[in-house]
Amino acid sequence: MASAPARVVITGGCGFLGQMLARSLLRRGTLCTHTATGVEGSAPIGELVLADVASPPRLLFEELEQRAEIAVGDVSDAEFCRSLVGRGDGPLSVFHLGAVMSGQGEADFDLCVNVNLHGTLHMLEAARRCGAPRPRFVMTSAGATLGSGAPTDWVTQDDAVSDATRATPHTTYGMTKACAELLLADYSRRGFVDGRGCRLPSVVCRAGAPNAATTSVYSAVVRETLAGVDTSSPIGPGVGHAVVGHRPAVDALLTMHEASAMAVDATLGFDRTVFVPSIAVTLAQLDAAVRAAVPPHAASLLGRVTYDVDERLSAAVGSFPTRAIGMWGDELTAADLVRHYAEDFPDALAEGVTLLGTDN
Amino acid sequence: MASAPARVVITGGCGFLGQMLARSLLRRGTLCTHTATGVEGSAPIGELVLADVASPPRLLFEELEQRAEIAVGDVSDAEFCRSLVGRGDGPLSVFHLGAVMSGQGEADFDLCVNVNLHGTLHMLEAARRCGAPRPRFVMTSAGATLGSGAPTDWVTQDDAVSDATRATPHTTYGMTKACAELLLADYSRRGFVDGRGCRLPSVVCRAGAPNAATTSVYSAVVRETLAGVDTSSPIGPGVGHAVVGHRPAVDALLTMHEASAMAVDATLGFDRTVFVPSIAVTLAQLDAAVRAAVPPHAASLLGRVTYDVDERLSAAVGSFPTRAIGMWGDELTAADLVRHYAEDFPDALAEGVTLLGTDN
Repeated sequence: MASAPARVVITGGCGFLGQMLARSLLRRGTLCTHTATGVEGSAPIGELVLADVASPPRLLFEELEQRAEIAVGDVSDAEFCRSLVGRGDGPLSVFHLGAVMSGQGEADFDLCVNVNLHGTLHMLEAARRCGAPRPRFVMTSAGATLGSGAPTDWVTQDDAVSDATRATPHTTYGMTKACAELLLADYSRRGFVDGRGCRLPSVVCRAGAPNAATTSVYSAVVRETLAGVDTSSPIGPGVGHAVVGHRPAVDALLTMHEASAMAVDATLGFDRTVFVPSIAVTLAQLDAAVRAAVPPHAASLLGRVTYDVDERLSAAVGSFPTRAIGMWGDELTAADLVRHYAEDFPDALAEGVTLLGTDN
Repeated sequence: MASAPARVVITGGCGFLGQMLARSLLRRGTLCTHTATGVEGSAPIGELVLADVASPPRLLFEELEQRAEIAVGDVSDAEFCRSLVGRGDGPLSVFHLGAVMSGQGEADFDLCVNVNLHGTLHMLEAARRCGAPRPRFVMTSAGATLGSGAPTDWVTQDDAVSDATRATPHTTYGMTKACAELLLADYSRRGFVDGRGCRLPSVVCRAGAPNAATTSVYSAVVRETLAGVDTSSPIGPGVGHAVVGHRPAVDALLTMHEASAMAVDATLGFDRTVFVPSIAVTLAQLDAAVRAAVPPHAASLLGRVTYDVDERLSAAVGSFPTRAIGMWGDELTAADLVRHYAEDFPDALAEGVTLLGTDN
């Protein structure tokens, strides 16, 4: 018997990662889900809802314009969260990506608590109460649930952190994410939802306009340089930072969603958020990878990277742990990050810029 | 210049520990506090508020009847929390002990989240907004922020757990306490309050009527036996459990309150909740300690302990870690627990029961 179509909700769905995930979901066409009889099975994706605080002028991909529904609202509003999940008894999958990021969270404590802590609670409650059989609930978290750099911290920058490392955040953002992880685990243990969390490092390279994150320059040195635009960096060229490519980031969210409940119980148990493996790269490495990726004739078309280092910011970024032990062992390289970006966003490259070994 | 008198609020203040703490505070008479000029100094205790969901017919001590104010209400009500802290600009100290315990929390998820998570948030917000200079905020937490017994857990029953152990609760109670610890740390980092937390093991021996906690039998074998009352235990005689005496428990709360902000920053840093050291005792050991403490003529006056073991409960209690590394090294014995109880509550002993080596 074929399953009823699944409703899929992506909060933060109009962001870069949300849209990349949405496109991957539409291309898959189906999802693993809990059915009303308690067994897991494959369901076709029916509705796909991109929830966000604002609707962009246009989405990144034409297929999203055609097949995704946009819902504008704030997850700190419980009623908005209830409206997202609907009230059918068909399967529901939530990808909860919407959050206030670290810089904004430090600037506005109450906003961060309202969106990240209460917003997660509202989404968990909405999923619990909506009538769908044990909704899948995949949530993004972050390495910011840890802190390092103070003598009293449990980890140093040089430690490899793992899923067993105690959460001791240094930011309100990290605190709210650590609480959200604990809530996700307990809602799952109770059977209210089937939750799984991914601690994502910085995603490189994000397409589109630069965002306000301190570490957005790790995307900018790839994106702007390939687009022929100059970049000025407040972070020093040699500061290592934990990043992941956009493809593995989406893969991680999908892998966590598709894992069977039995596998998650057996391997994760009571603590259902895992690190997505990251690689430590420096801006100098990313810049060099861009220049190595293009043929000689394109070199003059690339943007330039200059450094106007803010020592405080640079030291702060340099204090983050850069290695996480995660759920798989494949390693990316800076060259992969550049190539994946150029392949997925060919229109974002400056005219005349091509990649070696491709037809672009 | 003498400091303005401090307002002291104890949530859960009509419970056993709350009243023991209140009496100790009144006997001290002063507290370390932040003054309006930012320095720390000693302030006399002005008002002492015992906040609880119900008022007992009478308090344990006459001095509390005379000098403490009782406020009846629920910390899940934000307005009640605001009413507790007052609106003066004098010093404020909060001891946040009020919580739904583990058994009740498992029976009623929503109550546990409302009281333990939202209630802690309401108390933190009330303290932040009340106008007092950086209120001291001492909170009780629990070893239940950890879990053990499942193959996926990070600790086993035989591991010594420390402040560095990752919080992976197995109960809604433990989840809410782990979230509360994270909130306390971030409110403190922000300077909204000066928070310090104590993870308390079971307190032995609690005076008064038995409570509904699974592990209350660890108090009952001392209390009821000395009172000449028989006890039937669902926990096996040989199951070790982490306990602390009521005197060290109160001392721990006071020690955490009195530590200077500089000392807390330097030794605890971003993670401001610590384990209170516990000792592992079995019911058989406590029972033997009671019988060894009384002279031969009193033996026949003691209550008897029988075992009607619930294997599931017994195994659950036996799965808790029993050793915690904490902030000081003094070790209690089962004999101390019995002696401290008998000294502090002489009226609770059966007529004719005395302790060896005392005038009782």
